[in-house]
Amino acid sequence: MPARPIAVFDSGVGGLSVVRQLRKHLPHESIVYFGDSARVPYGTKSPRTVCRFSIECARYLLRFDPKLVVAACNTASALALDELRAALPVEVIGVVEPGARAALQAATMSNARIAVLGTEATIASEAYPKALRRLAPQTPEIVPIACPLFVPIVEEGRTGADAVSRAVIADYLAPLRTSDPHVVLLGCTHYPLLADAIREYLGPKATIVDSGEQTALVVAERLGQTHATADRANRGTIQVFVSDNPPRFRAIGARFLQEEPHSVTLVAAEEYAGLDRVDCP
Amino acid sequence: MPARPIAVFDSGVGGLSVVRQLRKHLPHESIVYFGDSARVPYGTKSPRTVCRFSIECARYLLRFDPKLVVAACNTASALALDELRAALPVEVIGVVEPGARAALQAATMSNARIAVLGTEATIASEAYPKALRRLAPQTPEIVPIACPLFVPIVEEGRTGADAVSRAVIADYLAPLRTSDPHVVLLGCTHYPLLADAIREYLGPKATIVDSGEQTALVVAERLGQTHATADRANRGTIQVFVSDNPPRFRAIGARFLQEEPHSVTLVAAEEYAGLDRVDCP
Repeated sequence: MPARPIAVFDSGVGGLSVVRQLRKHLPHESIVYFGDSARVPYGTKSPRTVCRFSIECARYLLRFDPKLVVAACNTASALALDELRAALPVEVIGVVEPGARAALQAATMSNARIAVLGTEATIASEAYPKALRRLAPQTPEIVPIACPLFVPIVEEGRTGADAVSRAVIADYLAPLRTSDPHVVLLGCTHYPLLADAIREYLGPKATIVDSGEQTALVVAERLGQTHATADRANRGTIQVFVSDNPPRFRAIGARFLQEEPHSVTLVAAEEYAGLDRVDCP
Repeated sequence: MPARPIAVFDSGVGGLSVVRQLRKHLPHESIVYFGDSARVPYGTKSPRTVCRFSIECARYLLRFDPKLVVAACNTASALALDELRAALPVEVIGVVEPGARAALQAATMSNARIAVLGTEATIASEAYPKALRRLAPQTPEIVPIACPLFVPIVEEGRTGADAVSRAVIADYLAPLRTSDPHVVLLGCTHYPLLADAIREYLGPKATIVDSGEQTALVVAERLGQTHATADRANRGTIQVFVSDNPPRFRAIGARFLQEEPHSVTLVAAEEYAGLDRVDCP
């Protein structure tokens, strides 16, 4: 019998940056991934629609009998985590709380402010500030910044060295370029690909925390706690399912994952859409 | 009995720039509009998915017994026009051929090259070059340029005066900044909002053609030919239907339409999704 996989879903290709971290920390785990490339992005959509789409993505992956489900998409984690947990029969781990926890640790050490970067919907939800205040009522100052152009810039294949990327980074992050120390929380799966350029722009006073990497550490911890870690003899695989355009997913995904997935399969609408029978808010 | 409306659909809010032109040229017509804001954008998606979504949008609007259907979305017009025409019982007018025709006229007068600006999918489809060559085998040189960042820049509320907009315009359009005359075909509904900045960057040798405006003229002509023009006593209305997020649609749409629609109504997924029973390629 094959080992039970970890299920990961995302609005599109970005969640592969979380898969990359899972691979780094849990190389023996098999991963099934659903990328909703037919309806991407989620970051400009309403909570209700993000909730409905997220549950449909996760439900699709239940057929693989996963050990747990990772909501790799920050927007989905920010807007739909409670509903996902209510709708699914397995544990669901989002990226918001792991990211918030690590940012808080870093901020406390350096007495820094916490800048949260995310999509329009993630920032509007205030999910990160709420998580930070839940974890520590004496939270340092929080500076939320919506960075909607970071996703299309990365998807277009631009790197941090590109003139447009630099102009956009400067436009969003100018308020952080002060002498005060900052923890900069990358609250979107695409942003790690701009991390070097952000670090360079902000200088050494900025500490960058990637929610995706923190989430991989939490997954590893949870598997240990529940004695569900894959056997070291297991050769972890990555099976990808997408709701649209496998060639574009492969081309753009390569930069996020930095390895080849074992398969990329197109899923017909009938197989995932309409799976949500839950009332979303 | 109310006059039969013109149906207009788009992947989201951008088609309102076409509605604005329809209002200018046909103020007595009533318009029903479907914006697929739950699945926007189409410009990064596969032909098959664009085709399926487009037919679903148009089918939704058939309940209003429209005189004709306008595919305001350039990506939908480029990738799905034949399938829309096969699937719908009324005339369908796309934006590609009207834009191509006007660009060709302008280019012939000034002996200019034609630059086609559009989304990733519109440019990859080569719909504009094909239309240009169909209209005139001796077409001038065609320079296709995909400009994926123009849409999110406009949706973020940036104007042409903004530093990021200027950096992006310069990045995409530098090859056109020569002493040769150019016709610049705006092959996406969002681009008219950057027209002034594009004109300023390229200088007086550039002639800008907006596919949306040309389409409104074609619609007016067709209504005249078929004796279907609304009575001058008719007070044209704009009824908008969206698949997600009416508040965001209203907020961003105001810049495209420059008037208030008479209503903006959220449509549940069950009412439009799954309406496509046609085999898309």
